[in-house]
Amino acid sequence: MLVEVAGRAPGGLVAAALEAFTAGGKRLRPILLALSAWMGQPDLGALLTASTAIEILHTATLIHDDVVDKAENRRGRPTTVARYGREMAVATGDYLFAESFHGLAEIGDPRLVRAFAEAAMGLAAGELEQFRSSRGPVEVEAYLEHIRMKTAGLFRAACVAGGTLGGLSLKQIDALATYGQALGLAFQMSDDVMDLVGKPGLMGKGVGADLAEGTVTLPVIFAIKEGDAAIIRRVLETPNPAPELLEAGIEAVLATDAIKNTEAWALSEVEAAIEGLALLPEGAERVILEAIASEVVGRDA
Amino acid sequence: MLVEVAGRAPGGLVAAALEAFTAGGKRLRPILLALSAWMGQPDLGALLTASTAIEILHTATLIHDDVVDKAENRRGRPTTVARYGREMAVATGDYLFAESFHGLAEIGDPRLVRAFAEAAMGLAAGELEQFRSSRGPVEVEAYLEHIRMKTAGLFRAACVAGGTLGGLSLKQIDALATYGQALGLAFQMSDDVMDLVGKPGLMGKGVGADLAEGTVTLPVIFAIKEGDAAIIRRVLETPNPAPELLEAGIEAVLATDAIKNTEAWALSEVEAAIEGLALLPEGAERVILEAIASEVVGRDA
Repeated sequence: MLVEVAGRAPGGLVAAALEAFTAGGKRLRPILLALSAWMGQPDLGALLTASTAIEILHTATLIHDDVVDKAENRRGRPTTVARYGREMAVATGDYLFAESFHGLAEIGDPRLVRAFAEAAMGLAAGELEQFRSSRGPVEVEAYLEHIRMKTAGLFRAACVAGGTLGGLSLKQIDALATYGQALGLAFQMSDDVMDLVGKPGLMGKGVGADLAEGTVTLPVIFAIKEGDAAIIRRVLETPNPAPELLEAGIEAVLATDAIKNTEAWALSEVEAAIEGLALLPEGAERVILEAIASEVVGRDA
Repeated sequence: MLVEVAGRAPGGLVAAALEAFTAGGKRLRPILLALSAWMGQPDLGALLTASTAIEILHTATLIHDDVVDKAENRRGRPTTVARYGREMAVATGDYLFAESFHGLAEIGDPRLVRAFAEAAMGLAAGELEQFRSSRGPVEVEAYLEHIRMKTAGLFRAACVAGGTLGGLSLKQIDALATYGQALGLAFQMSDDVMDLVGKPGLMGKGVGADLAEGTVTLPVIFAIKEGDAAIIRRVLETPNPAPELLEAGIEAVLATDAIKNTEAWALSEVEAAIEGLALLPEGAERVILEAIASEVVGRDA
């Protein structure tokens, strides 16, 4: 389905779009959407269209994020901007963004358009805030607000869109929204931990990439309060820090309880996510959604 | 209304969005949408929302176009990218794009979402094609295809959305689509002429800006076939041509019938636009739409 979308794209976009789609993502958002929908009685055509649309929207935001961050690699491959330049990357993202809403229009339910548009507004606002607050001091509340917009919003939208397509009750859709949001927060916190403790091959980013970019994550906030704040701040404030400096910054974070405390917070979000599911029909879909939440902390890639 | 939208934007976006909205555009697309709608019986709330949404979408695409083109000025003011940098400009465009579809979701008619999404897909594809074909040879057919996507698509969407909101018949909406598309083509051809013959103060771009950027417009295509192709090609192929070279290129175009032939083509599109209106109800709206078409060629700014 994603391959078909890329094939429909005008000349120059096909290659770039195809590469972005086949770059080895986990397709987590379409899976969440489909599982949420199957708790009810979705129209299968609409479900396929919406699942595709959310992966397209996600891909569009990744492409633009990489333009903003000047990222060279994602998931171990060159980014669209690195390979084709800023012009192609901006236009490819815009095209896929529009394609996502075009798909939703086919389904004909304005609630889906609203859920996607709200998530997309949050994503753009989150990306902007991340850029503005880069290398500066960040408090836990600002961090949470940021990842609510930047990561959790699209997880939430996936679950809400799925529940809507399944014809669930408003109360059930709210429960799915709670699940999606908590899952997204846990997912991001887990990502933050992995940036510091490893799996560079699978992540495709390299250890300490967030720190080097000046992105203040939750473990870093904890470590600044508890440990050698001076060295961590120096890494954050230095554009392209030298490997030794970056290494010293990572060591300073790992010398504190920051990782343990972040994982504990992520686990509490996982619990909240699973609790949110209690209102939903029992069955295979709920079991899988619970399993996804349990896997998020300590996941590989 | 646009000011309210900018005010709703998250912290860092307000200033950038407000400046983009107040940068002195002609609001032509919302006016076309409203006039088309008033040919029928639109819901006024929906009409206001849709008119705002199309100006927001247009603004979003201008902001991203300026990122792609690295434009310093638009309408005589610094662009968002020049003033706030690439990061803010990409995120601001994305935010406004999402806000546009969020507004459409409120109206609840998927046909509007489809019309906007199709136009937005064309815009992105057009921008991309322009970049790819920049400084290279362009034939009339490729030029027409490009401006159909890049300029005429949003004019067409404005008219289709308006007719849909007005509850017009499919035949009448098709007639409005024909009008919008022909108007958009004439508008772009007229823009191409003005790039060569003047009004830099009002345009805010400076004479020969397209030529200097390597953008092959209709008069340039005509002039290459008819006049001193070597010098024109040299300007197109030179990044940041010296003023003397650019001046020589403009002179070479003006020495041919290229301007006259482009204006003649634009006028034939204007006639097609006005003919398209014959199927629509007589009245003040139709008279104004006809007047807008007549004004497009030779308009100031």
